[in-house]
Amino acid sequence: MLKQCFDNVREKHPLVHNITNYVTVNDVANILLACGGSPIMADDSGEVEDITSICQGLNINIGTLNKNTIPSMFLAGKKANVLGHVVLLDPVGAGASGLRTKTANELVRDIKFTVIRGNISEIRTLMEGTGNTKGVDADLADAVTEENLDETIGKLKAFSEATGSVIAVTGAIDLVADSEKCYVIRNGKPEMGAITGTGCQLSGMMTAFLCANAEQPLEAAAAAVCAMGIAGEIGFEHLKEGEGNSTYRNRIIDAIYHMDGNTLEERAKYELR
Amino acid sequence: MLKQCFDNVREKHPLVHNITNYVTVNDVANILLACGGSPIMADDSGEVEDITSICQGLNINIGTLNKNTIPSMFLAGKKANVLGHVVLLDPVGAGASGLRTKTANELVRDIKFTVIRGNISEIRTLMEGTGNTKGVDADLADAVTEENLDETIGKLKAFSEATGSVIAVTGAIDLVADSEKCYVIRNGKPEMGAITGTGCQLSGMMTAFLCANAEQPLEAAAAAVCAMGIAGEIGFEHLKEGEGNSTYRNRIIDAIYHMDGNTLEERAKYELR
Amino acid sequence: MLKQCFDNVREKHPLVHNITNYVTVNDVANILLACGGSPIMADDSGEVEDITSICQGLNINIGTLNKNTIPSMFLAGKKANVLGHVVLLDPVGAGASGLRTKTANELVRDIKFTVIRGNISEIRTLMEGTGNTKGVDADLADAVTEENLDETIGKLKAFSEATGSVIAVTGAIDLVADSEKCYVIRNGKPEMGAITGTGCQLSGMMTAFLCANAEQPLEAAAAAVCAMGIAGEIGFEHLKEGEGNSTYRNRIIDAIYHMDGNTLEERAKYELR
Repeated sequence: MLKQCFDNVREKHPLVHNITNYVTVNDVANILLACGGSPIMADDSGEVEDITSICQGLNINIGTLNKNTIPSMFLAGKKANVLGHVVLLDPVGAGASGLRTKTANELVRDIKFTVIRGNISEIRTLMEGTGNTKGVDADLADAVTEENLDETIGKLKAFSEATGSVIAVTGAIDLVADSEKCYVIRNGKPEMGAITGTGCQLSGMMTAFLCANAEQPLEAAAAAVCAMGIAGEIGFEHLKEGEGNSTYRNRIIDAIYHMDGNTLEERAKYELR
Repeated sequence: MLKQCFDNVREKHPLVHNITNYVTVNDVANILLACGGSPIMADDSGEVEDITSICQGLNINIGTLNKNTIPSMFLAGKKANVLGHVVLLDPVGAGASGLRTKTANELVRDIKFTVIRGNISEIRTLMEGTGNTKGVDADLADAVTEENLDETIGKLKAFSEATGSVIAVTGAIDLVADSEKCYVIRNGKPEMGAITGTGCQLSGMMTAFLCANAEQPLEAAAAAVCAMGIAGEIGFEHLKEGEGNSTYRNRIIDAIYHMDGNTLEERAKYELR
Repeated sequence: MLKQCFDNVREKHPLVHNITNYVTVNDVANILLACGGSPIMADDSGEVEDITSICQGLNINIGTLNKNTIPSMFLAGKKANVLGHVVLLDPVGAGASGLRTKTANELVRDIKFTVIRGNISEIRTLMEGTGNTKGVDADLADAVTEENLDETIGKLKAFSEATGSVIAVTGAIDLVADSEKCYVIRNGKPEMGAITGTGCQLSGMMTAFLCANAEQPLEAAAAAVCAMGIAGEIGFEHLKEGEGNSTYRNRIIDAIYHMDGNTLEERAKYELR
């Protein structure tokens, strides 16, 4: 199943429209190319409806939102909804400022997202109105642990039920839930946390997976999460002495570039709850 | 001749003003430094005339154009024309949205470009009013092939005649034409297409080549195209097992950093038609 | 002392708010993570006060300033002053345009900076009203040399006295001065000049050092300068055949990632004047 999801991306080369932050945008574009997708970045209100119309999916990331790009997010999201396109929200830093929290909440209210993907603090901000966001990183107090796993899964399923979106939470343990099922994924390396934008990269790549597997968004999102985690493992194995977070970033994208569906299937570590 | 063009860049260290997109801007800056130029990025209408005045050339790239940067492109371009500076247009995504097509056409109408460089779909959009732009990548239907080569060259020469600009089209076969001659260049690797922004990088580097060889823009543009293709070949040869598109990006810029005029001269594969 | 400064960063994980340019922003984020800090980038006037309030320090870099981000710099800087936070100014390109010079001067007038860090041309523009800025790089005519070293140090101490800020000037010889003392630092490699944004990276990392050592800004700034220079040396030692400025960029950040306080202490080359 995971294999098929990835094979579909390689075969269909989905074109993904990204309204994303300027911090990690280059890595998002390169990982989209690495997985078999094709990226286009456009954030001016004068063109986002045109651009999203020629794409198969839309990735909205609020990492460096501003007065000009916020209206573009709504315009593009609504247009994508009308066209029946895949739409993903990455609520970067929701909880860190009033503007981010308000914008993320209004996006969730006005646009039907296929997937909402964030760290646990961002998702708690959206689903509970409270989260201990430490800037753009999740707060330890919010962390998903073996102890609170079932409780957290229950909340994610309820939030999925309420929004109609698949909810993907990434961290030490990754969770991908719809209203009935939750993938609990244990791939990845803690060292990925020392790279800026692995979450943004995952959101971009996940949008391509969703485009190429529009009938099964839960599985597609889980496959993308597994692929990112496995790339983190493979990239780490390839690190040489003296190489640190900057080279690790390249090696993760490189690992996606060389990954095939079989590797994804074999190395994925997940259970369903 | 190619050697001299490159040597001039290394000797003159031209300062290049870039109004460019935020996706690939870092790579553009680093390749400009790698080839011997010096980059400055500035896109606010309150300073672009000042900035372009202290530079030798201007690189306008519409990859993430917006309401604020579009007027800056016109201001800087007109100022550069008044000063007799080199100006290059990279019409990223022309054809993908009305805003991009309109902006690119108006730039070509109002500013005298030394070179217009794009993929074949972008250039067709400008020269024929139609192109099958697939986002920021050329569409297969537009591809330059051995079969349509002479016809395409004829069109590029006519477009050069009409605009007074050298026209550079990059893809599997690269073409650099003025109204009378066309360089047909066969360097490069198809894997370069899996890196975001090799076109943007080429435009930045080409502007430095044009600055340092202002009397012969056709040759300077061809030399930059050859250098980029050869860097793609050298970078590919240096790839180690497991390295993919992200590391390849670095290795291409590294190859420009170490390239000298002799290597450029020896490895360039081109004919004149 | 340098060791303790670095150890404090690793222990306290300071959260740094960056209003910075889109050219080098990704490298700034990654070097902040590499040294033990945590970055957040936010530049909209609607959120910068919120964001800076949850951080321990603020890094203002005017590298691609514009109409929207300039007011944000003032809002965030004033808020950080009220909160008693560390604030650093990197006046990228001051002297290259009227807008940059004016903005940098007004920032220095209205905000109390813990440190002002730039190249010698930028700092001369601020302290003498004149500098030979060559775009974003210092002009050779301004270079700090053994001959003008004492004179330059005298000027920096006076500028520090006048502004109440530590003044850090980086180049072939690095200087970090308050009104009484000046660190003269001779780490680093000339090849760092072929990488875009080593100065921006240093400013980001220095802000983390200042946050973690708020009682001794002069020493913290000097420690960050030494760390960057040593990383440049270590990164250079790790370069393999064929690797150039793009890979070198990664290796410098990697070197910060693996550096510890002892290495910093042992390899730092400085004197006090």
